[in-house]
Amino acid sequence: MNNKKEVNAAILIIGNEILSGRTKDLNTSTISSWLNKIGIRVLEVRVIPDIENKIVETLKELKKKYNYVFTSGGIGPTHDDITAESVSKAFDLKYEIHKEAYKILEKYYGKENFNEGRQKMVWMPSNAELILNPASGAPGFNVENVFCLPGVPSILESMLPGLKNKLVGGKPILSKTISLRTIESDIAKSLKEVQDNNKDVDIGSYPFFRKGKIGVSIVLRSEDQTKIDMCNSQILTFVNKKKIEIVERD
Amino acid sequence: MNNKKEVNAAILIIGNEILSGRTKDLNTSTISSWLNKIGIRVLEVRVIPDIENKIVETLKELKKKYNYVFTSGGIGPTHDDITAESVSKAFDLKYEIHKEAYKILEKYYGKENFNEGRQKMVWMPSNAELILNPASGAPGFNVENVFCLPGVPSILESMLPGLKNKLVGGKPILSKTISLRTIESDIAKSLKEVQDNNKDVDIGSYPFFRKGKIGVSIVLRSEDQTKIDMCNSQILTFVNKKKIEIVERD
Repeated sequence: MNNKKEVNAAILIIGNEILSGRTKDLNTSTISSWLNKIGIRVLEVRVIPDIENKIVETLKELKKKYNYVFTSGGIGPTHDDITAESVSKAFDLKYEIHKEAYKILEKYYGKENFNEGRQKMVWMPSNAELILNPASGAPGFNVENVFCLPGVPSILESMLPGLKNKLVGGKPILSKTISLRTIESDIAKSLKEVQDNNKDVDIGSYPFFRKGKIGVSIVLRSEDQTKIDMCNSQILTFVNKKKIEIVERD
Repeated sequence: MNNKKEVNAAILIIGNEILSGRTKDLNTSTISSWLNKIGIRVLEVRVIPDIENKIVETLKELKKKYNYVFTSGGIGPTHDDITAESVSKAFDLKYEIHKEAYKILEKYYGKENFNEGRQKMVWMPSNAELILNPASGAPGFNVENVFCLPGVPSILESMLPGLKNKLVGGKPILSKTISLRTIESDIAKSLKEVQDNNKDVDIGSYPFFRKGKIGVSIVLRSEDQTKIDMCNSQILTFVNKKKIEIVERD
């Protein structure tokens, strides 16, 4: 745990399908956007393969470095789902049947359909706390500051609201975007001056192509709305002076 | 560099816009898929903020651990583009004007339009080798095994073919996907048996939702087509026995 006032997190995506390029990662964006609202800032994302040793070592590193770690993937019923066992090893805990999860899934599937594959999903680190799953039954879990979520984006998303009471965030991270019909090199100098005058606001500059036209989105991020507004007005000053068209603001 | 026969790589995405959730990362998928074809396997992806110290430390770690490192983002003209300077520090090299890059960009923009913002993009680690950019002029570069590419997906993609002669890959990584109208827990046991009998094939199992119907995609990956075929036929055996509908194969 770091001692800064800011509350931070890392996301650990566990899955060969992202590394191979077969599947695009959508979960980082979902988790980060949701965490921003409750004042938790994601400072690192890692994607690693379904290899136990790699998962254990990465978890040990990240859970020390960040306030929270959110994992995605590897908690289903198949042979390549090894997240729960890896978390047990990272925390030096037994890997065992979670009684509450067993009850939930036995009820969800019905006793006669609660087969061996499904029963695998109730094996967890001992004393894991459940994260309920309104979309498809099988719960995620957390051990201390490590929160384990599934890889399927719609299921992951359904489970986030249930996490809220388990997390202590800081001030929400606010942002403002101004999209301009310009190119980065024409505003780089002015933008740097604004950044130098507004050290507490993160100013990002992102070129875009939309409907065949190019532009630049400037994103201002801070916990303090007044600082964003001040920074914004300094940007509008040079934008007006340079007669740059504003495409969009939000 | 590791000494295994397999040639591996890491991808380092540098950019607050991915961490904040504002932008979804598309570049991992593009780079990984392209590398697979030339026999380079991505074993790790990291996303980190535009913070110099973090970039330098991460580069030092990854360039030692993997055969190749591909970075994306942070090589444009604005204040938040600090990749080139960070690479210089990671390799203990001077950060200076690259003469060839200067000539390329001066020609691309015309002498009169080659302003201060644009000139920032020719500052690179000394002795960097250029990666040409057919889409928008400004080249990427590599120092030893670290290859620096831009963050804009279409520009990055246009630069990959120019990388081919700089990389020494292994055998291409082949894959086969079988999509089934089933649920994971109904095939988990059979699939594990196939995995146990085919240790050299990576078998991944991925639930999907398409057009309101659920299913599971099984992905087989190996450098050896014969092994994939053998594994595939064992999967088809249990699929037929269980009378599971095959939705798609590729």
